[in-house]
Amino acid sequence: MNSWQGFYTGRRVVVTGGLGFLGSNLAHALASAGAEVTILDALVPGCGGNPENLEGTARCCRVVRTDIGEMAGTAGAIDDCEVVFNLAGEISHGRSMTEPERDGELNTAAQLRFLGLLAHMRPGIRVVYAGTRQVYGVPLSLPVDEDHPIDPVDFNGIHKYAATMYHMLYSRLGQLDAVVLRLSNVYGPRMALNVPGQGFLGVFLRRALLGEELGVYRPGDQLRDPIFVDDAVEAFLAAGAAPVLRARSFNLGGAQALRLDEIAEAIARAAGTESRVRFLEFPKQDKAFDIGSYVADWSRARQLLGWQPRTDFATGIERTLRFYRERWETYLPGAGSLWETAPGR
Amino acid sequence: MNSWQGFYTGRRVVVTGGLGFLGSNLAHALASAGAEVTILDALVPGCGGNPENLEGTARCCRVVRTDIGEMAGTAGAIDDCEVVFNLAGEISHGRSMTEPERDGELNTAAQLRFLGLLAHMRPGIRVVYAGTRQVYGVPLSLPVDEDHPIDPVDFNGIHKYAATMYHMLYSRLGQLDAVVLRLSNVYGPRMALNVPGQGFLGVFLRRALLGEELGVYRPGDQLRDPIFVDDAVEAFLAAGAAPVLRARSFNLGGAQALRLDEIAEAIARAAGTESRVRFLEFPKQDKAFDIGSYVADWSRARQLLGWQPRTDFATGIERTLRFYRERWETYLPGAGSLWETAPGR
Repeated sequence: MNSWQGFYTGRRVVVTGGLGFLGSNLAHALASAGAEVTILDALVPGCGGNPENLEGTARCCRVVRTDIGEMAGTAGAIDDCEVVFNLAGEISHGRSMTEPERDGELNTAAQLRFLGLLAHMRPGIRVVYAGTRQVYGVPLSLPVDEDHPIDPVDFNGIHKYAATMYHMLYSRLGQLDAVVLRLSNVYGPRMALNVPGQGFLGVFLRRALLGEELGVYRPGDQLRDPIFVDDAVEAFLAAGAAPVLRARSFNLGGAQALRLDEIAEAIARAAGTESRVRFLEFPKQDKAFDIGSYVADWSRARQLLGWQPRTDFATGIERTLRFYRERWETYLPGAGSLWETAPGR
Repeated sequence: MNSWQGFYTGRRVVVTGGLGFLGSNLAHALASAGAEVTILDALVPGCGGNPENLEGTARCCRVVRTDIGEMAGTAGAIDDCEVVFNLAGEISHGRSMTEPERDGELNTAAQLRFLGLLAHMRPGIRVVYAGTRQVYGVPLSLPVDEDHPIDPVDFNGIHKYAATMYHMLYSRLGQLDAVVLRLSNVYGPRMALNVPGQGFLGVFLRRALLGEELGVYRPGDQLRDPIFVDDAVEAFLAAGAAPVLRARSFNLGGAQALRLDEIAEAIARAAGTESRVRFLEFPKQDKAFDIGSYVADWSRARQLLGWQPRTDFATGIERTLRFYRERWETYLPGAGSLWETAPGR
């Protein structure tokens, strides 16, 4: 039994960025839990939103197409909500380096306008914000807990941290009641495999599905702790329903710490295609904001939210591959399915 | 002999916010040191800029009236500069709470555009940024060193920290060579005594000069370490001239840690007017972002920049009061001079 069981039945919740990867998975879970879900999503090109992600929700979700920074569109959508899951934004580290102002507008300025409006219209409301481990920059030691110094190595990390500080400040002032979940790499169904900059796991999955090589940047022993999206969703549901917490920031990580080359091998193997792993030189423009190894210390989330990652990587990858193979035309249109033509399958 | 002696002779330097309090004092010092000074200042209402602050510089300074976030005006002013002192911005904590978007535009978005342009036009240039102790929020212990956790309690602190992170990121990328000086309360000649939100020291000085009561928020034992502006300027000059440093952030503080009531008493006494100190209840809207006591640990600046505050508070206040009394019509126009009418003076 989950800590939030029954909490969402009939509850009016808002999911910003709810047409995106994580947001839509959360919307599915909320709908299944009986919530009245309103989704705010501007479908900003490049951010990974996709209306097809909502296909098959247990209840109908209201979708409002608006930028969260636009008062007019947003006000009417949030006026009676009881919990907000704030996932709108751009996650591409690379794009933030070439277009820092765009990243600042999407991840910082729009958040300030949104939170100001929310604090005004729904004072004291619980907001669960999708933060990022990128705010820590290059880890000083592993695993990384929430007291690790803040030292982002790219504009995306800076802007997400500024938005984190907004959440904290409004909470200190008693105008919002925010919880920030700092995510490691999330993977699973509904990742935008066709959109650049959505993380290496989406690239690996796409290439494995297509039977293409998986390129691992040398040395390949960098650690990551990928979180299966259902586990991440579980943390959001727990955070949205939790009573007043004695901390507001929580690191989330996956069930296992794995090397990049292990991750690539596991995905290639699971895909059962001709996909193979190949080592590549680290591109200079990417190396500049590489963080080396990262593993989250999620013990605070376990203690205060009763959360822990439950899905091992092999299981998560298997579920993910199955999802895409059953929806090939939606997520990999025109790419042709090796799966269907692979011998013996 | 100063560490920067001779460094600025004939050197082309830019001072953003150079018509403001600290910026103009720095411009005076740079001009005296023989630098070719270009000032960028938009004279944004409320930010404290004042062209009269430049009166009497040892050499003529070029003044370009432009927002640092506006490419067109800025590009021509920075195209051959060798050192940038980046002081433009809004310092009012209170105004940031009522107009957070304005503060974000002035202190964060404009800085991003400026630094991007600077990194493009003058790659690798030394930039000395005027940061603030406000990024630390409520001190966990005193004195506060540069490793203190970041936890700003107002929008101004958030936005100044975002700009700090921009400086750090561009430096990490090798595109700028930034030094961030985190200032405690600075006081001295050329404070904007007529502009609200420029800090309690300006309010005290103004009221003391006018013979009005100095209101100290209870309990009055909050510690501050006011820096005389000449000492702050000295740190900027040292930071602009220093070779590559093994740290980029430096806390600056004053020569003494004093209680608010001691500060008020000292100013009232030095003013020699009818001014008296009175204790007031802490206004609720200000209390929300009060940081309690603050004292900087400036030992890193002493070690790496060879800097230390040299002016004791009594001396600094005396010099400050004398400055204003000699320029009453410029800085307190129409207020009438108690000084001139005070008996026996």
